[in-house]
Amino acid sequence: MKANILTNVELLNHWQGHRNLTRRVIEKFPENELFHYSIGGMRPFADLVKELLSIAVPGLQSIVTNTTEGYNHHLPYHTKAELLEAWDKDTPKINELFLQITEARFKEEFNLFGEYKFPVIENILYFIDNEIHHRGQGSVYLRGLNIEPPFFWER
Amino acid sequence: MKANILTNVELLNHWQGHRNLTRRVIEKFPENELFHYSIGGMRPFADLVKELLSIAVPGLQSIVTNTTEGYNHHLPYHTKAELLEAWDKDTPKINELFLQITEARFKEEFNLFGEYKFPVIENILYFIDNEIHHRGQGSVYLRGLNIEPPFFWER
Repeated sequence: MKANILTNVELLNHWQGHRNLTRRVIEKFPENELFHYSIGGMRPFADLVKELLSIAVPGLQSIVTNTTEGYNHHLPYHTKAELLEAWDKDTPKINELFLQITEARFKEEFNLFGEYKFPVIENILYFIDNEIHHRGQGSVYLRGLNIEPPFFWER
Repeated sequence: MKANILTNVELLNHWQGHRNLTRRVIEKFPENELFHYSIGGMRPFADLVKELLSIAVPGLQSIVTNTTEGYNHHLPYHTKAELLEAWDKDTPKINELFLQITEARFKEEFNLFGEYKFPVIENILYFIDNEIHHRGQGSVYLRGLNIEPPFFWER
C-alpha cells in the first residue's frame, strides 16, 4: 500500500545533518592536502567540495526560480578557511530555498542545469547522494593520510 | 509548509537503483583484490559488502517482525560469485519486506539491532546512505587499482 514516508522538513534536516558531517571532514584535512592530495588520479577533496557548493544552492535556486542554466564548479576558493566560510554561508540559504519548494513542485520534472531531467525530488536526492559519495571518497583520502575521519553516524 | 515528498515505493526504487550500482562496483573488482586490497588500513571491499548484506535484509526483517537482535557481518562468502549470488537473492526479499512497512510504522521509533533507536524511516535512510558511503570508498579502491568505476549516476 502506498505510504507517505518523508516530509520536506525531514529531508532538509537529513541533508543538513550530512552537510554538518561533510564540514567536519573538510576540517580534518591539512591545508595543503585538502587542495593537492589524491588517490588514483581522482580530484583532490577541495575540488569535490567545490562541486558540492556549485550544486546545492545554485541547483535549489534554479528549481525555485525555474531557470535552467549550466553549472560551474570552478569556484575561486583557495584556502580551507574560504571553503568553510562558503559552506557556512550556504547553510541558511539552503534552508530558505528548500522550503519554498511545494509538494506539487517536488513531483514535477525539471531539467536541472539543462542536463538532468528528472522529478525535482530525484534531483534533490541526487544532491545528497552525491555528497555522501564524495565524502566517502574524502574519508579514504584521510585514511591514506593516516588521519581518522569523523564517525559516519555523527551528524 | 509541510509537504509529503516521498512514498515508500519511490524510496524502494531509489534504493534498488543504488543496489544495482553497488552490484556493478562489486563486479569491477578482480577476485583477489575484492577480498584483499585496501587503502590506509580500511577493510577490503568484500568486507564492506558483507556489512551491507548483514544490514539490509536482517534490518528489514527485524523492523517487520519487531524483534531486536544484534547483527553479524562475518558472513561466509569467499568468492565474488558467492557475494553476487547473495546480493541477488536479497533483491526480491528487500522488495517484499520493505512493502510490509506501513506509513505509521515508518514514523515509529525502533531500536535497530538493539543499538540504534530512531524512527524507522531514519534507520532505512541510514541503510542507503551507508551503502553510498562504502561504495564511494570502493570507487577509490578501484581507482587505486587503475580500474574505472561505473558512473555514479547510472542505476
